[in-house]
Amino acid sequence: MELIKNRGGSSATELEKKIKKKGARVGIVGVGYVGQVLGETIARERFFTIGFDIDQKKVRAIQQKGLKYFLATKDFSKIALCDIVVICVPTPLTEKRQPDLTFVKKAAETISRYLHRGKLVILESSVAPGTTKNILLPMFEKKGLKAEEDFFLAVSPERVDPGNRKFTIKNTPKVVAGVGERSTYLASLFYQSFIKKVHAVHPVEVAEMSKMLENAFRLVNISLVNELSEYARGVGINIMDVIHAASTKPFAFLPHYPGPGAGGHCIPVDPYYLLHSPWKNGAKLALIKEALKINEQRPKKVVDRAYEILNGKGKKPKILLVGLSYKKDSDDIRESASLKIWQELEKRGAQIAYHDPYVRRFNGERSTPLSKRALLAHDLIVIATDHGNLPYQLFARIRTPILDTRHTLPNNPFPHIFYV
Amino acid sequence: MELIKNRGGSSATELEKKIKKKGARVGIVGVGYVGQVLGETIARERFFTIGFDIDQKKVRAIQQKGLKYFLATKDFSKIALCDIVVICVPTPLTEKRQPDLTFVKKAAETISRYLHRGKLVILESSVAPGTTKNILLPMFEKKGLKAEEDFFLAVSPERVDPGNRKFTIKNTPKVVAGVGERSTYLASLFYQSFIKKVHAVHPVEVAEMSKMLENAFRLVNISLVNELSEYARGVGINIMDVIHAASTKPFAFLPHYPGPGAGGHCIPVDPYYLLHSPWKNGAKLALIKEALKINEQRPKKVVDRAYEILNGKGKKPKILLVGLSYKKDSDDIRESASLKIWQELEKRGAQIAYHDPYVRRFNGERSTPLSKRALLAHDLIVIATDHGNLPYQLFARIRTPILDTRHTLPNNPFPHIFYV
Repeated sequence: MELIKNRGGSSATELEKKIKKKGARVGIVGVGYVGQVLGETIARERFFTIGFDIDQKKVRAIQQKGLKYFLATKDFSKIALCDIVVICVPTPLTEKRQPDLTFVKKAAETISRYLHRGKLVILESSVAPGTTKNILLPMFEKKGLKAEEDFFLAVSPERVDPGNRKFTIKNTPKVVAGVGERSTYLASLFYQSFIKKVHAVHPVEVAEMSKMLENAFRLVNISLVNELSEYARGVGINIMDVIHAASTKPFAFLPHYPGPGAGGHCIPVDPYYLLHSPWKNGAKLALIKEALKINEQRPKKVVDRAYEILNGKGKKPKILLVGLSYKKDSDDIRESASLKIWQELEKRGAQIAYHDPYVRRFNGERSTPLSKRALLAHDLIVIATDHGNLPYQLFARIRTPILDTRHTLPNNPFPHIFYV
Repeated sequence: MELIKNRGGSSATELEKKIKKKGARVGIVGVGYVGQVLGETIARERFFTIGFDIDQKKVRAIQQKGLKYFLATKDFSKIALCDIVVICVPTPLTEKRQPDLTFVKKAAETISRYLHRGKLVILESSVAPGTTKNILLPMFEKKGLKAEEDFFLAVSPERVDPGNRKFTIKNTPKVVAGVGERSTYLASLFYQSFIKKVHAVHPVEVAEMSKMLENAFRLVNISLVNELSEYARGVGINIMDVIHAASTKPFAFLPHYPGPGAGGHCIPVDPYYLLHSPWKNGAKLALIKEALKINEQRPKKVVDRAYEILNGKGKKPKILLVGLSYKKDSDDIRESASLKIWQELEKRGAQIAYHDPYVRRFNGERSTPLSKRALLAHDLIVIATDHGNLPYQLFARIRTPILDTRHTLPNNPFPHIFYV
């Protein structure tokens, strides 16, 4: 879509000029992983950038980077100084697995206090289609300012992929939609100043839903391959061989790999935003529901399989859980299947030690070094995260049975390697 | 995987020489779309090729092509002349949606009658993992010949994609697995003589299951996007805009598009082979089951939507069904959603005419030409197949409501275009 020309309006024109001259001051509300990477990218483009967070640790982390154009503070009143405010707060689930918009609403509430003419607010957090127009817009307009006239509001879901070296913020196309043409134009202009390709859409719900589709796609395909992994095991073949074979098809296929259940703050979470949306108009989402179910049952299946392998060995088997984070080479343990596996193992009476080079301490325990002796001292090793720096050669050589939930090791010719 | 060297055995060595010199005679059992394209490709490589079919029309079609090296016959005793026999028969479903292996078994039965020392049999039809070893192998060995010693047996699922101009047989990598090393070697050698890349795997079940994964992937993703298409409609946005936005993500996404339900002889069929396999060892396949259900409910949803749009207009609404084939620019109506839509419309009392440039006659009816007058004479037009040569400009201009199940036309600014 071509960008719609700015059709005037003094606030819009002024902000347009500021963006073009990189004179616009940018605030990032929420400097977790996403906000921090975004802020850094913007600041390196010489936009004066302020990171806002209630977490002193995150604020300090930014301050310690010592980037010339990137400040951080817990003082949210400084939002008043910003021409553009980007919301990068988490959208997690409540304990009952309902969408938890607390952080988004709190951010919007705070921003609305410092809303002034000519300000552009952009939501990068993942939300169900309808959220921006039905929740954020009224919060901002309550104070008498009018969107598209006095201030501007847009959505541009974050696509930060931790650990992806090929695709960074700058070369990952960005979907942008404003609540009106001016907002779309200004937000696109802003992102274009540091991102190669901006894809403007309308209405704003298209941008919101695009992120939901991206994550539903991941969830459903990971659940499919987990389902087929069990099937392959029943047939006596390795699902990885099947996936590699299918991957030679040069069209209409994209490989996904088995694991202990998808974790993190996106894939197992976002689909609930669709599922429990107040604007879903009775949509059933039977497939997504089934995919969530498979994903959530996966840790229990891992534990069932662990006990099958242990085959009655001891009432309190000693189990070494390798990898706590939800993703390879990351320290992020949000929604990690490892934690659910731990919980379930504990419930069944196992003695658990863990190893994770990125998570030094957890739950009062310390990461166990992976010496040969440590490995031999356990009845079973469960590889839950396929970190790049694990001693896979050693895993292959020892005799302790290994339940490899990530299929990182071939079970042929290693009969002590097992799969779920 | 590197090819395993032929470790001798006179039958194997002889066939190896014949393949290398292109002196091997190849028989194709079943010359439907897949067998015909394969036979043509092989014959153009100057392998003497014989197509076998019980259908005189298919035999004649090959004869009429007049290819020097490609003959066709209904006389299956000529299989005795062939060094290599490739099975390309359909693997459909019974009326009760159970796998129907009749054609495969019949082909194997016939081939086993003419099995001689040194013959290589290859199965290209899609089957559940376990079929080759548990059904075909015993049928061939019943006559006293031994696989790997006397004859050779391999699997290499077809990947022919009708209408795909970029990927033909020759540049689409081929998965190959034999029941033993010699069979793998010989089948790989054969395919390598006309296909760029051969991916040898073992055991044979990996090859069988790779095709199942490829088609389960398609089914599940098409069902996902159909499910989300209804959701998007509820939210008031066009799912195509959402898909295009998500498609700008340069990793971890592959777009699929909404439709009236996936048809054809593969996607809605193969998953049942997994689901009802006697070797599935209790696997549940809940996600695949749900995807099948969504796919099979889709035609009924199209008709529900049609009546919603008609909004009580007449007891016998006149409906024009555009596209009978399951796929764009194809004449293949196997498992086509159009036929189910037709059936359902008829059941509800509609008067149906159809148009399909590739299906001139169907069910005693003729394809209706798409004149402006014909379009205006109907209460509703249902686009079921997005053939490339339809008058889309005319569709956009007329006033008759159009239910566009393929989202080929934008509904903005055309309020007479509706989606499912």
